[in-house]
Amino acid sequence: MKKIIGVMGPGEKQATQEDVECAFEIGKLVAKTDSVLLCGGMSGTMESSAKGAKEAGGLTVGIGPTKDKNDMNEYLDIPLLTGMHAGRNFMNVISSDILIFVSVGSPGTLSELAFAIQMGKPSIIIHGSEKMKDYINELSGKDIYFVDSLDELQIELNRLFQ
Amino acid sequence: MKKIIGVMGPGEKQATQEDVECAFEIGKLVAKTDSVLLCGGMSGTMESSAKGAKEAGGLTVGIGPTKDKNDMNEYLDIPLLTGMHAGRNFMNVISSDILIFVSVGSPGTLSELAFAIQMGKPSIIIHGSEKMKDYINELSGKDIYFVDSLDELQIELNRLFQ
Amino acid sequence: MKKIIGVMGPGEKQATQEDVECAFEIGKLVAKTDSVLLCGGMSGTMESSAKGAKEAGGLTVGIGPTKDKNDMNEYLDIPLLTGMHAGRNFMNVISSDILIFVSVGSPGTLSELAFAIQMGKPSIIIHGSEKMKDYINELSGKDIYFVDSLDELQIELNRLFQ
Amino acid sequence: MKKIIGVMGPGEKQATQEDVECAFEIGKLVAKTDSVLLCGGMSGTMESSAKGAKEAGGLTVGIGPTKDKNDMNEYLDIPLLTGMHAGRNFMNVISSDILIFVSVGSPGTLSELAFAIQMGKPSIIIHGSEKMKDYINELSGKDIYFVDSLDELQIELNRLFQ
Repeated sequence: MKKIIGVMGPGEKQATQEDVECAFEIGKLVAKTDSVLLCGGMSGTMESSAKGAKEAGGLTVGIGPTKDKNDMNEYLDIPLLTGMHAGRNFMNVISSDILIFVSVGSPGTLSELAFAIQMGKPSIIIHGSEKMKDYINELSGKDIYFVDSLDELQIELNRLFQ
Repeated sequence: MKKIIGVMGPGEKQATQEDVECAFEIGKLVAKTDSVLLCGGMSGTMESSAKGAKEAGGLTVGIGPTKDKNDMNEYLDIPLLTGMHAGRNFMNVISSDILIFVSVGSPGTLSELAFAIQMGKPSIIIHGSEKMKDYINELSGKDIYFVDSLDELQIELNRLFQ
Repeated sequence: MKKIIGVMGPGEKQATQEDVECAFEIGKLVAKTDSVLLCGGMSGTMESSAKGAKEAGGLTVGIGPTKDKNDMNEYLDIPLLTGMHAGRNFMNVISSDILIFVSVGSPGTLSELAFAIQMGKPSIIIHGSEKMKDYINELSGKDIYFVDSLDELQIELNRLFQ
Repeated sequence: MKKIIGVMGPGEKQATQEDVECAFEIGKLVAKTDSVLLCGGMSGTMESSAKGAKEAGGLTVGIGPTKDKNDMNEYLDIPLLTGMHAGRNFMNVISSDILIFVSVGSPGTLSELAFAIQMGKPSIIIHGSEKMKDYINELSGKDIYFVDSLDELQIELNRLFQ
């Protein structure tokens, strides 16, 4: 069994340019760990993380919210459907061994972070706001790692793999 | 069709005594609006909100995470099952017309708040921490109402019913 | 807790006139047992069973496949949503204490019958074809009752309530 | 994107020795089409189909019903979880481009066949009973192919790939 790293972040409507570029680099980092990249299968950070992983020779899986594979991005090796809308967020989290969150600036991503905390999944959050950190730390400091750069993210990822 | 008010809050492991008592009073308020009370069906605030609604003559529905009705509290007129664990949180939110959150001090409740924001459901949060308010306001101020007492909650609820 | 009787059958595209009329009468029978009628919330037999239950003073719950209550029929006291398309069929079955199937002439209804057999839920099938009976009996004769008239259905329902 | 072929059949409690051996050979055939094998992730035919695919150099995905990867078989490259019990059957079907059913002798497999018919997914059924064929043909003859041997299955699979 391969290790599965979920990369969670906003779609194109809510993602900033920085989010999209960051997710692309995260995808490359994930592929280099020889883990499978799991994402929500759609646009924005989901697409760019899968694109990054493919560029680095990785394997990509998407668990999408709709009933139609044509809705999903083209960088997925294995596009899976649920027809469950955001109800599928639970599945993305429960299927991941480690999670990486891009900024947590959208409610969909927040629902995934909440499930990750509930399940005790090791989670790295990059580019989170100060207010988000304060609240999440109040809720649970356990297994949640905040990083501000890709270098720091790489360090945390290495640590989780040891 | 009756209006459905979802009351979301922690189970007995994570609920404080104040949460449980507050949920009981919220249950009574919900019943007095002649709405159906919807909750997650289990213990803690879920049980006490249903108990409060029954005491005030209301109708109570629970959407539970397990496969067995014996897991659910005894104050539910209509105990529904999903077998989906916390995946059922999405259903609690999408089925509610209005949501009331008790404190948002547990990740399960946070996942429900995140879905409510994503769906644009009118939501009242009672006894939220300052850090939670700061972050949620940063994420989205839309249709989210923070209150610190049952009197304020009653006022917001009346306003939503106009 | 009230007993929940699920009435499962096709929507308006696949239901015959006989199915729709039969479901209406089943709704009335369910209401007279003082049980809650649970259905899939949409048109066809789902609508007419809820209409029948309301005419007989019953309480009706629908678990719908879409994200919008406006898609659901008007005879539901408690319209619940899942946004899960036919994935919600599992929930209809697991939430019911007893199931009544109208003819099983559509694949959606068949998926619900299959789940009912899997969970060992007592199930009455009215107006099933001979071929369906032969196959279902081969798969499992346990707790599955075939009836050809509303009178026979009433007898089986009484027996299940003893 | 790779094509996904779902192989659906009973777990070890309900599978016959013939079912298990047949699923193993199906797994090999699927791998030779260069498609991804998707299964329910557990024991019995699910395990042997994945084992067969791995022996032939294929890629295997499981969508499991539980919350724990340790419940899943060891021949899965990508073990995904849902925590949804048999509610996950819907996902197995909606995610597959083509489905192969081993015998349809258990209600879980029947629920998956019912969903496949509802979604119009091309489906091959091997070793189905005469009674099952009669009923399924009555329900829908569309895109459902009955075969009695692996050779016939191979022919149908080739045809679907043209």
